[in-house]
Amino acid sequence: MRVEKQEVKVGELAAGQALSLPVYRFHGKGKGPSVYIQANVHGAEVQGNAVIYQLMKLLEHYELLGDISLVPLANPLGINQKSGEFTLGRFDPITGVNWNREYLNHSLDIAAWYAAHSELDDDSLVAAFRTELIAACERKLDNVWGVTTGQWLATSLQAMAHRSDIVLDLHTGPKSCKHLYCPEYEREAAQYFSIPYTLFIPNSFGGAMDEAAFVPWWTLAEVAAAHGRELGVRVSALTLELGSQERIDLADALNDAEGILAYLSYRGVIAEKVLPKPMKRFGCLLKDYRKFHAPKAGMVEYVGKVGQPMKAGDVLVNLLRLDLYGTGEELTALKLPEDGVPILHFASASVHQGTELYKVMTKVFAL
Amino acid sequence: MRVEKQEVKVGELAAGQALSLPVYRFHGKGKGPSVYIQANVHGAEVQGNAVIYQLMKLLEHYELLGDISLVPLANPLGINQKSGEFTLGRFDPITGVNWNREYLNHSLDIAAWYAAHSELDDDSLVAAFRTELIAACERKLDNVWGVTTGQWLATSLQAMAHRSDIVLDLHTGPKSCKHLYCPEYEREAAQYFSIPYTLFIPNSFGGAMDEAAFVPWWTLAEVAAAHGRELGVRVSALTLELGSQERIDLADALNDAEGILAYLSYRGVIAEKVLPKPMKRFGCLLKDYRKFHAPKAGMVEYVGKVGQPMKAGDVLVNLLRLDLYGTGEELTALKLPEDGVPILHFASASVHQGTELYKVMTKVFAL
Amino acid sequence: MRVEKQEVKVGELAAGQALSLPVYRFHGKGKGPSVYIQANVHGAEVQGNAVIYQLMKLLEHYELLGDISLVPLANPLGINQKSGEFTLGRFDPITGVNWNREYLNHSLDIAAWYAAHSELDDDSLVAAFRTELIAACERKLDNVWGVTTGQWLATSLQAMAHRSDIVLDLHTGPKSCKHLYCPEYEREAAQYFSIPYTLFIPNSFGGAMDEAAFVPWWTLAEVAAAHGRELGVRVSALTLELGSQERIDLADALNDAEGILAYLSYRGVIAEKVLPKPMKRFGCLLKDYRKFHAPKAGMVEYVGKVGQPMKAGDVLVNLLRLDLYGTGEELTALKLPEDGVPILHFASASVHQGTELYKVMTKVFAL
Amino acid sequence: MRVEKQEVKVGELAAGQALSLPVYRFHGKGKGPSVYIQANVHGAEVQGNAVIYQLMKLLEHYELLGDISLVPLANPLGINQKSGEFTLGRFDPITGVNWNREYLNHSLDIAAWYAAHSELDDDSLVAAFRTELIAACERKLDNVWGVTTGQWLATSLQAMAHRSDIVLDLHTGPKSCKHLYCPEYEREAAQYFSIPYTLFIPNSFGGAMDEAAFVPWWTLAEVAAAHGRELGVRVSALTLELGSQERIDLADALNDAEGILAYLSYRGVIAEKVLPKPMKRFGCLLKDYRKFHAPKAGMVEYVGKVGQPMKAGDVLVNLLRLDLYGTGEELTALKLPEDGVPILHFASASVHQGTELYKVMTKVFAL
Repeated sequence: MRVEKQEVKVGELAAGQALSLPVYRFHGKGKGPSVYIQANVHGAEVQGNAVIYQLMKLLEHYELLGDISLVPLANPLGINQKSGEFTLGRFDPITGVNWNREYLNHSLDIAAWYAAHSELDDDSLVAAFRTELIAACERKLDNVWGVTTGQWLATSLQAMAHRSDIVLDLHTGPKSCKHLYCPEYEREAAQYFSIPYTLFIPNSFGGAMDEAAFVPWWTLAEVAAAHGRELGVRVSALTLELGSQERIDLADALNDAEGILAYLSYRGVIAEKVLPKPMKRFGCLLKDYRKFHAPKAGMVEYVGKVGQPMKAGDVLVNLLRLDLYGTGEELTALKLPEDGVPILHFASASVHQGTELYKVMTKVFAL
Repeated sequence: MRVEKQEVKVGELAAGQALSLPVYRFHGKGKGPSVYIQANVHGAEVQGNAVIYQLMKLLEHYELLGDISLVPLANPLGINQKSGEFTLGRFDPITGVNWNREYLNHSLDIAAWYAAHSELDDDSLVAAFRTELIAACERKLDNVWGVTTGQWLATSLQAMAHRSDIVLDLHTGPKSCKHLYCPEYEREAAQYFSIPYTLFIPNSFGGAMDEAAFVPWWTLAEVAAAHGRELGVRVSALTLELGSQERIDLADALNDAEGILAYLSYRGVIAEKVLPKPMKRFGCLLKDYRKFHAPKAGMVEYVGKVGQPMKAGDVLVNLLRLDLYGTGEELTALKLPEDGVPILHFASASVHQGTELYKVMTKVFAL
Repeated sequence: MRVEKQEVKVGELAAGQALSLPVYRFHGKGKGPSVYIQANVHGAEVQGNAVIYQLMKLLEHYELLGDISLVPLANPLGINQKSGEFTLGRFDPITGVNWNREYLNHSLDIAAWYAAHSELDDDSLVAAFRTELIAACERKLDNVWGVTTGQWLATSLQAMAHRSDIVLDLHTGPKSCKHLYCPEYEREAAQYFSIPYTLFIPNSFGGAMDEAAFVPWWTLAEVAAAHGRELGVRVSALTLELGSQERIDLADALNDAEGILAYLSYRGVIAEKVLPKPMKRFGCLLKDYRKFHAPKAGMVEYVGKVGQPMKAGDVLVNLLRLDLYGTGEELTALKLPEDGVPILHFASASVHQGTELYKVMTKVFAL
Repeated sequence: MRVEKQEVKVGELAAGQALSLPVYRFHGKGKGPSVYIQANVHGAEVQGNAVIYQLMKLLEHYELLGDISLVPLANPLGINQKSGEFTLGRFDPITGVNWNREYLNHSLDIAAWYAAHSELDDDSLVAAFRTELIAACERKLDNVWGVTTGQWLATSLQAMAHRSDIVLDLHTGPKSCKHLYCPEYEREAAQYFSIPYTLFIPNSFGGAMDEAAFVPWWTLAEVAAAHGRELGVRVSALTLELGSQERIDLADALNDAEGILAYLSYRGVIAEKVLPKPMKRFGCLLKDYRKFHAPKAGMVEYVGKVGQPMKAGDVLVNLLRLDLYGTGEELTALKLPEDGVPILHFASASVHQGTELYKVMTKVFAL
């Protein structure tokens, strides 16, 4: 199999250094869907690179039907941005804008576009729509007033992603169990990855890569369906949250690479049959995903374990306030308001009032 | 005149310190509109405090008809957040969220609310609507899952602001000339402040205090007008950009305090007649306000002067690239794409590709 | 037992908030040595607060012979300083100066001082020397040109510490096993804490609290000995490194509180006999404590386990470089240069060239 | 004249990008002293790059006797490190260590070295000593345990600087007038640069480049003199503080390039006679250079103008405390304790207690 490496320039630092991405392309036989996988758009979320490493090593032993493009280290500016002993890679250090909220929200009037192209057959329609999305990204970047640092990066990535049928964006949580963001139209995808918990998300753009990739196609499918045409959603886009940030674990990365391979097998990207890991899998709707914020400031003992179901009233956090010793308020147990599964918690053990301490799936169901 | 001071708690730091705001209330005779003025929601934008200081000293010599509440130092967490020799006060250092994008976007269905209250007379309608807005803020803060640090602050401020008829939010730019954000429905306000340039903004919520204060009232006026009732927009909300950040200038603060006083005089908040400073004033629609981003990285000489009109093709920036000495690209002049007035520029003299270098008013008109 | 709480002001934030320390004093019967314990001088090193909490709860059940002063949350500015999801609390965010390098280096000429006071009996000599050290701290703070933010804090803490015979400074490493900094003159202390590894440090001032507390006394003992007087070192000062930063673990804190109690029992601060935890304990001289720096940049899998002995040539780190996939340099094993015990490693999983990856004890010996 | 460009690698970022320095070498006829000039070791201090740019353009028109090496953008990691709208380039963002305190403090026993080499003639002695200094830098970098990120950079720069007879390090202050750090042995140098104020510094190593370059040579000269040999200090090293940080001003840079040229002319590096700018020049001993720290927190109006003499008791700063309005402490004038010239002040207009507000030369004398 031929692996091709390309460097794509996505930015330039003040002292003149070019920022470029390594893009690895595994070429398939052209009979399966094409795939785009990126990792590390948030600078501290490094484990996706290890998963791409293990996946590339695995792929050398499989027969590829579709092309696979892999972009590790997808945000060099974010990865390189340290503040103290940690990576401050979640947002642009100048503007505060989350790197995963900079993707282009296509302003295309899809209903009008469909009306103008409805005479095309399915394949031509899909090809024309894809061309339109890529062209919109290119227009965004080619602008006499310029674009922001984050838009340079995100729109460049997005233009690559729009060329593929399957888009996987590899992230992690702060201190987190593995979970998956999956659009509601593709529930079965949640059965293949080595991931126990899945959030099902609606057709709504909030700025992230997965939404940037699927929202136009989902909308197109809806518009076509409203005209009686069963086009289906032609692009799959999922975000994998591969545990905790600031962690490289090569053995665990192999486990997740095998899960991705199972999904690619199911989708016909590789010729071989690869089965998913047997595990219990659970789902939650995005509207039932809750954030628990610190009602008071203090030192935090995280009692709730990520990935383990809890009951309403169970202790989620012990909050320690040494300035209040002797008042009876030096140690407070904060309790979970509803039954749920803590999915991730904050990374630091001391918090201001209002810090998001936990994200919790409620109304969890078996898949 | 009685000045009353109140401390309003808006947060708590990890080590236990309470964050509170000083609120100064000047009580009027109850015959004029009430006023709310805050400053320093962005931590580095300190000059508004000096303006409030000068305004309070001035107010001691005037007859107040309406009540005036003044909140300097409105974001203690942002003010105290240093990073190197500057204040990193534009966004929450944990999440990156801009402190001026955390105000509550009322989810109230105003058309339905109007239908349910249309039998009320104007004064009762206004009072009921105000009560509803304040109650929504209180509900937001009283939530079993909690709210973010920024929402604690912003919603607390907003609940105070909703109690007044006039809301002034004092900000600055990075390196900036003075300018005003003014809703389109109140163009004449732009004639009173000691500020030469005004941006006229539409009825759209982007997260800022001025919008949080006027959008519901503007929408209510539109709904009422659609029912044939000329209620008018009952709340004025403006953002004053008082020059550059990281600057305290007491003499200039007096100048701006006098401009505010002229506006308050015009609005009947004080009994005395105070005339605005004579100056040429100019306007621009928000849609014509442009951001110019660095097409390349490098060292920056800011050639365009803020507040001074330029022609398309004039040199805005000299970009120096010492790594390219001898290639002919070591010094590049970046030119203004359209006629306009540079209003502000970036604070640092070295930039990554994509940094917002200037904001420029185009299609400027005299007021 | 009477516990007294005092608030000591150590700073003031830009927006006006006072920064104060809670100081808890447990009064003894005056027959044992006095003790000063502080925690959390580095903002992310929070576990010492939990240890102080558990220790205070334990102390309520013991008979105190000496006074004990406890200062949790000893650096409120550092604790409150977040940058992204972690606490940037190791250095002053404005100057970069390590908070634990700001203590006063006494400029006293101890030989001359001894010559001038040698006629005093031991107790009087000790009392006079203590008075001199405290006075020097007070002079430092009372200075027409002022002192830095860090000196305000450190010198205030130091003046309190100089009043005691035993000084314990509670820290943690980044990702760390427990270890102790112990001056060479008091080797037996290492047998009492719940800590397996001890670094023995010489009579040299590097800016830290333990050194600030013991160096003058050690020097005084040496000067006296040179004059044939066996004064002994009258002050003990140790730094306890209680595992990893950004962690509160109340059960483990109890374990360390019991170790401190065993040391206090041995020193006669409490009347009861408390035995140390049985464990193998090891030592290393400071000169044999090595820092291993990243020879190249990349993603890091930390293979060496903290607290577990390794041989020269064992793999310490896997360094992953996805930009080099296919070159043979995508995965490099970095090896330990000498036999040793990794004591701590860096907190982030991606590093620039030169980042300190591990600290390693070499030439380790059993205690 | 031949200008040669070389790229010197000094680091590597986490995502794999190499950090390299552009080194420009102008070759002289070998009859004059050699020169090394660097700029921008602190990331925000960019103006030195503009001065190097102007100097390189000037040099093309002069006859060079000695070689000149120019290193603009000398700290790419520091230059690229943004935090908010400013460059956080004064210290390593991970460790807090000031980039200008990482140079190698030679541990060479110079008295012993001189004893072992005293039979050499002056030129051979100088050459051997230079070789020894360079070798020590190389040994530092070639170390099985590695060196820190800052040591990689600083020691690489230092090894280059040790090859030259004249070392100029171009810095700026925060908000600053121009001033020069000049070793006491070379007072006449202060007459040539376009700089009014000079600090004369002793033979003491504090970590900076100028000291790293001259301390060994000064010590060697002293050792030789003690043996009755008038070797003189063979290396000149000066630090130029070229006004304020975060500023590029090409016209002013030309002014400073001409001052450097005057010094190079005086030293015989160029054949042509270039006269210094006529200006009054003043000096101050380093021991009389004072730091004024904020005795209280608050908003700061900087009243003292940099470069303008003041009397004891003159107002240096107005400190505004809006939380104290009405108490009589809302506005405090802070006064200069001694006659002096404010040389620089802090960059931010709000400060914590203890922030260094001003540096002031006292006991200033005319040169």
